[in-house]
Amino acid sequence: MMTMLPPPTQMVLREGYCEFNYGQPDPDLLPVDALRRAAAMALDTFGPDTLAYGAPEGAWPLLAWIQERTREREGVTVALDECIGTAGNSDAIDQVCTLFTRPGDVAIVESPTYHLGLKILRDHHLDLRAVPMDESGLRMDALDATLAQLGREGKQARLVYTIPTFHNPTGVNLSLDRRRALVDRAVRHGFLILEDDVYRELAYDVVSPPALFSLAPRGVVLRMGSFAKSLAPGLRLGWINCSAEQARRFADGGLRDSGGAPNFTAAMMVAALCRSGDFDAHVARLRAAYRERRDALAAALARHLPEGCAFTTPGGGYFIWVTLPAGMDADAVRHAADAHRVAFIPGGRVSIDGRGRECLRLAFSLMKPAQLEEGARRLGAAIAAAA
Amino acid sequence: MMTMLPPPTQMVLREGYCEFNYGQPDPDLLPVDALRRAAAMALDTFGPDTLAYGAPEGAWPLLAWIQERTREREGVTVALDECIGTAGNSDAIDQVCTLFTRPGDVAIVESPTYHLGLKILRDHHLDLRAVPMDESGLRMDALDATLAQLGREGKQARLVYTIPTFHNPTGVNLSLDRRRALVDRAVRHGFLILEDDVYRELAYDVVSPPALFSLAPRGVVLRMGSFAKSLAPGLRLGWINCSAEQARRFADGGLRDSGGAPNFTAAMMVAALCRSGDFDAHVARLRAAYRERRDALAAALARHLPEGCAFTTPGGGYFIWVTLPAGMDADAVRHAADAHRVAFIPGGRVSIDGRGRECLRLAFSLMKPAQLEEGARRLGAAIAAAA
Repeated sequence: MMTMLPPPTQMVLREGYCEFNYGQPDPDLLPVDALRRAAAMALDTFGPDTLAYGAPEGAWPLLAWIQERTREREGVTVALDECIGTAGNSDAIDQVCTLFTRPGDVAIVESPTYHLGLKILRDHHLDLRAVPMDESGLRMDALDATLAQLGREGKQARLVYTIPTFHNPTGVNLSLDRRRALVDRAVRHGFLILEDDVYRELAYDVVSPPALFSLAPRGVVLRMGSFAKSLAPGLRLGWINCSAEQARRFADGGLRDSGGAPNFTAAMMVAALCRSGDFDAHVARLRAAYRERRDALAAALARHLPEGCAFTTPGGGYFIWVTLPAGMDADAVRHAADAHRVAFIPGGRVSIDGRGRECLRLAFSLMKPAQLEEGARRLGAAIAAAA
Repeated sequence: MMTMLPPPTQMVLREGYCEFNYGQPDPDLLPVDALRRAAAMALDTFGPDTLAYGAPEGAWPLLAWIQERTREREGVTVALDECIGTAGNSDAIDQVCTLFTRPGDVAIVESPTYHLGLKILRDHHLDLRAVPMDESGLRMDALDATLAQLGREGKQARLVYTIPTFHNPTGVNLSLDRRRALVDRAVRHGFLILEDDVYRELAYDVVSPPALFSLAPRGVVLRMGSFAKSLAPGLRLGWINCSAEQARRFADGGLRDSGGAPNFTAAMMVAALCRSGDFDAHVARLRAAYRERRDALAAALARHLPEGCAFTTPGGGYFIWVTLPAGMDADAVRHAADAHRVAFIPGGRVSIDGRGRECLRLAFSLMKPAQLEEGARRLGAAIAAAA
């Protein structure tokens, strides 16, 4: 019967294709052995507690580890009651919408942005407004124009959803000045900042810039951290840093009051894994592997992309963002790309305002350096063919 | 630092208390060894797939097992695309609200009902209406009156949330006639039935009655199944049986499109556990243990409750529902109960229409027979003291 089943995972790779389109980790880099040890350790250490309803706030042994790491790596002191466990950032976005928004509320998003995050906001019937980015992240002049426009409509922004660090899809970091400016706007206009900080651990050159959460008064920023990229997405585990009052709103909500901690058994296993030292070792391995891949893809793109193309070389995360020669549309390249068996995400798919049609997103996380080189060669040929 | 942490689980037991108030499994009955084997088996069998983003529909190896079991145990044939994985019934209720309701929609609930389920419905700003129960479950005459009242208000019911099998808190089963009648009303009035079927595996005398889902045309009933009671709540794993179209709505939603299967790693472990035979062995052990506890508590209540008290003896599930002598209020008994170090949930807490104040909910899942006997003795003394 197993042979009749669809594949268990989201990712369906096509034979012979170079798949730049999946923002997913290489299966060879998933911590299978560490998880095997962690499962046994959690059940040995915590016994049946591992399997009971977890505290609504999350698995305390894991939250305490997150607190410690945040202090050590970011120099940021977060109280234990300013952290709430989540089932990953998708769950976090979903729950923020349920508990902190109402249908029709205005949510400002970046253009381009993480397109599947947008789908969650849409499921909650939010009124989405796009603000463009440049090489320093979200443009403050454009944000101010949007806020002014909302004022003319008699509306207020309820939240800004942003990926300020190793942005998906562009790879850029929001500059420190703009981080401060964004927090300032949030305070003055009374909106929440929903900070998607999923790539923080994957910094390849220097340390990641300070989180918006660390620059703002409590209550302004909900910072979503996750183990999806630093360990494994299937665990569905993350956390939110916020004010103690906001954390209580999550913990007191029906979902957590009824079901307890999201994904508690997995959280206890990850607590064991993190406390064993396996987390640090794994992240070091990931950084080395992805740094090599980023460098390999950047070098290959420099060699193979036709004249007039440009691309970002991000300091971390999963993505390189390519801009095609003037007048070209990434959708048109897709057809040629298919013939060359190379896949990517066209920029038009990851924005809601028509921007980015001349761009495309390449994930370098999934493929090994030789495949990335071959993919870049095929992509160059496809662009040339479509020109 | 660990010693400074709050307890990791929801349940905080008070020394020397008889805690009838937790509808939670006895930690000694949680499958620690089976889960240890399952974690290793899943990682051996499925390798890195265990840790990747799961298919949005859920972990197929687990969904296929659920399909098989539903056919074997219930004689019900469900297509593979009529099942969607969830992170337990709390998550299922939450997602049904997000994807199938809008704020202000009318949700009909039983009085009394599972009070924490109500909190989830409230977080989604639904307009809750209570319909009373009797010893055969939800009263159809009262449901018809509520539907007629809604008609006069120019409103329609969007959903009925019901626990027809081994009801929480009353322990009763909805009669077969009423099951058919409820489905009939749903078809005629166009509302969804949200069937909370979490206690199905815990049948102590005869097999569980047919699920509403099995009696209805597809699209009318969303049946929520769960491993919270049959294995372990901390896993946060369950499923919904529904129409293929409804299943697609879940799978295509932003949350699953972005994050993949809820709680995927745990789901793959449970798939391994179920396929190994450990599930059947565990459930058989649970049935024997809880049957003994139900019998012990029922016998002890018969001995210790003052005259004028009545109680249900359920065929399954976790709860016995006690009715106090005429004129007594369960809230008043609570104070006396505290002095006797026995705890329960007063009926007024589990209804929204003021009914059930003369009742109280006792969970027999957590304590062993001797503790149940002692608890019944204390409860009897507390009621006598409060009379």
